[in-house]
Amino acid sequence: MTRINENYLKLQAGYLFPEIGRRVRAFKADNPQASLISLGIGDVTQPLAPAVIDAMHKAVDEMARAETFRGYDDGGVGCDFLRQAIIENDFNARGVDLEMDEVFVSDGAKCDTGNMQEIFGIDNIVAVTDPVYPVYVDTNVMAGRTGQANEKGRYDKIVYMPCKAEKNFVPALPDTQVDMIYLCFPNNPTGAVATREQLAEWVDYARRNKAIILFDAAYEAFISDPDIPHSIYEIDGAKEVAIEFRSYSKTSGFTGIRCAYSVVPKALKAYKSDGSSIDVNPIWSRRHCTKFNGVSYITQAGAAAIYTENGKKQIQQTIDIYMANGKLICESLTSLGYKVYGGVNAPYIWLRTPDGISSWEFFDMLLKKANLIGTPGAGFGASGEGYLRLTAFGQPQDVKKAMQRFAKV
Amino acid sequence: MTRINENYLKLQAGYLFPEIGRRVRAFKADNPQASLISLGIGDVTQPLAPAVIDAMHKAVDEMARAETFRGYDDGGVGCDFLRQAIIENDFNARGVDLEMDEVFVSDGAKCDTGNMQEIFGIDNIVAVTDPVYPVYVDTNVMAGRTGQANEKGRYDKIVYMPCKAEKNFVPALPDTQVDMIYLCFPNNPTGAVATREQLAEWVDYARRNKAIILFDAAYEAFISDPDIPHSIYEIDGAKEVAIEFRSYSKTSGFTGIRCAYSVVPKALKAYKSDGSSIDVNPIWSRRHCTKFNGVSYITQAGAAAIYTENGKKQIQQTIDIYMANGKLICESLTSLGYKVYGGVNAPYIWLRTPDGISSWEFFDMLLKKANLIGTPGAGFGASGEGYLRLTAFGQPQDVKKAMQRFAKV
Repeated sequence: MTRINENYLKLQAGYLFPEIGRRVRAFKADNPQASLISLGIGDVTQPLAPAVIDAMHKAVDEMARAETFRGYDDGGVGCDFLRQAIIENDFNARGVDLEMDEVFVSDGAKCDTGNMQEIFGIDNIVAVTDPVYPVYVDTNVMAGRTGQANEKGRYDKIVYMPCKAEKNFVPALPDTQVDMIYLCFPNNPTGAVATREQLAEWVDYARRNKAIILFDAAYEAFISDPDIPHSIYEIDGAKEVAIEFRSYSKTSGFTGIRCAYSVVPKALKAYKSDGSSIDVNPIWSRRHCTKFNGVSYITQAGAAAIYTENGKKQIQQTIDIYMANGKLICESLTSLGYKVYGGVNAPYIWLRTPDGISSWEFFDMLLKKANLIGTPGAGFGASGEGYLRLTAFGQPQDVKKAMQRFAKV
Repeated sequence: MTRINENYLKLQAGYLFPEIGRRVRAFKADNPQASLISLGIGDVTQPLAPAVIDAMHKAVDEMARAETFRGYDDGGVGCDFLRQAIIENDFNARGVDLEMDEVFVSDGAKCDTGNMQEIFGIDNIVAVTDPVYPVYVDTNVMAGRTGQANEKGRYDKIVYMPCKAEKNFVPALPDTQVDMIYLCFPNNPTGAVATREQLAEWVDYARRNKAIILFDAAYEAFISDPDIPHSIYEIDGAKEVAIEFRSYSKTSGFTGIRCAYSVVPKALKAYKSDGSSIDVNPIWSRRHCTKFNGVSYITQAGAAAIYTENGKKQIQQTIDIYMANGKLICESLTSLGYKVYGGVNAPYIWLRTPDGISSWEFFDMLLKKANLIGTPGAGFGASGEGYLRLTAFGQPQDVKKAMQRFAKV
């Protein structure tokens, strides 16, 4: 008799986006002529950079001839040309040294942030921010690292670290000992960034407690402030305690192309039950090479083109479009008297709901009065109540129209 | 203190291919002028079909324009156009009905066969054939479904089902109760196929024991005998007890492009600890959509082109090249007095070593005397001792040359 993994039965229904869909469909049914604008989705809208397009055409042609055909990406860890470009551009350029076999190319940061927990023991205490990207939590529930959820949707055994406006949405260090700490800066959903000093505190905490930081830097390309670190490895000692996740999804419009990478430094240690230390890098390598088989060569060729001179310029132009959207949203809403956060070093705007109304009430009001769709902050965790997430990824003309509608609410 | 997942420490070193590499490098160092031919690798050599190349160029161009740009594959389960083509061509054409949401497009059958076990309980008894594709075993070791390995490399708690020549390398039903049964037909490494009657016995066993069959059909395109089922769902009742894995890697040369799919029927049940049944399809859907984010649109467009009229013809031409290799290998070796299996309905040839010498002795002899590289059968499990695996995926001129060399050994 095949038993199901009953940890899956603890999962709360992924109620946020289905519930948004349900309300939007109901509204459309009642108002078939309404022209809705979504500022809720996290997907990009701008086409791929010409340098990426050219590189992918070239790669497709290589696959058409036996002499240049490419089969398995040996070991599945990524082509050397891509990992070399990553190290030079994303790390060496910021003063961080990495070796090739510390970089693992993958098909998405969602996959990497979801899979990484598998190589750690089931008894580790997991700490997440509140609000939080749900994948960190759900994958730990599936693995059995939590108990049941309570009426607020918080799982037993997980340590939730509230992120408050007065602390710029950077969590305080936990007052109990935790082992696996998920941090995401620039943050989804709050748009917050962590300063060098704040990251250094976390690295120090992890070193003192032999904890590991799972650092999601998927949105680093949106940092405009020169003092904000792009990589946690810009902090001394971080290689001993941190794994970093990067993604081309939002940086380069790769949501439909699928490419990302993780950095697992050779200096990183975890511990056996007898207290002795063990290198994490070869364990992740074993997992990656056993349960994954590499990223499409065409995708990798496209990703490498991002690091060419033309590619860099073109990518920056697209990011500038999104950040102009973010600026317009922040300025428009501020001038209307709303309190907004993020949108400067991140593609997310975290909007305080007016007059203390709830996330979902504000969502409904915007939908009905302005035909606008946001994402209720409460869907990201209890501390998201009273906020709405907007994204900067829309078409500029839609964002302009959306701000005009906001003015009329 | 972050504990490592100590199940990883039970894993036997992936000694097979590294050990082959070590011996080949040592031989090359001593014989720098030797021209080696490998019949050991499982990677393809023929370029992609023109229909696939055209479709991928078109898809790249779509990504270059905002009006046709595609972001996230909604839900990550695969584009409708691909899942529709899969159902019509791979299943309806063989009398099997499937619904769209029973098909999950992924980036590889290695990933799918490795990941699927996650949704089942840790106490299930796993049964595998011996010899076996190592991913089935290793991913269950990582998950904690086994004890330690013994001196033969067999893990405690796993039920190994020996596959013997006298039974055409199809295992007998286990005499103890097992829950999760991995079967691969056409088989890697033996090249064996299962008849309709043999599969019906397995389906019947699974139904009687409420077990689940994890059926790897990655090589079904190589079946030439019209009586051999391509899908386990051609057997009545299989939808209630079987998951099927398919791959474009060997069928269509997609080892470097990455596309595959799994079928999880809605009729499939697993069980809770209280004995009540639960649908498996929504649980896998939750796992797939939480830890995976879809396959590259360009890859999916290429995969769909396989099902066009031109695509089908072109794919068949490539398969014919490989199967001509297989035929040449089988006929040449048989005429030399070797005993060979497979190679007719599968791209793998399973060669009995002569005079009872061991897999590794024969490997060394071939390397030194004929400068040929095979894969020692012992590397796939204890019952693979005394065999060598050859593959049909080489360039035809290399295969011809290899057979001339065999004649001289």
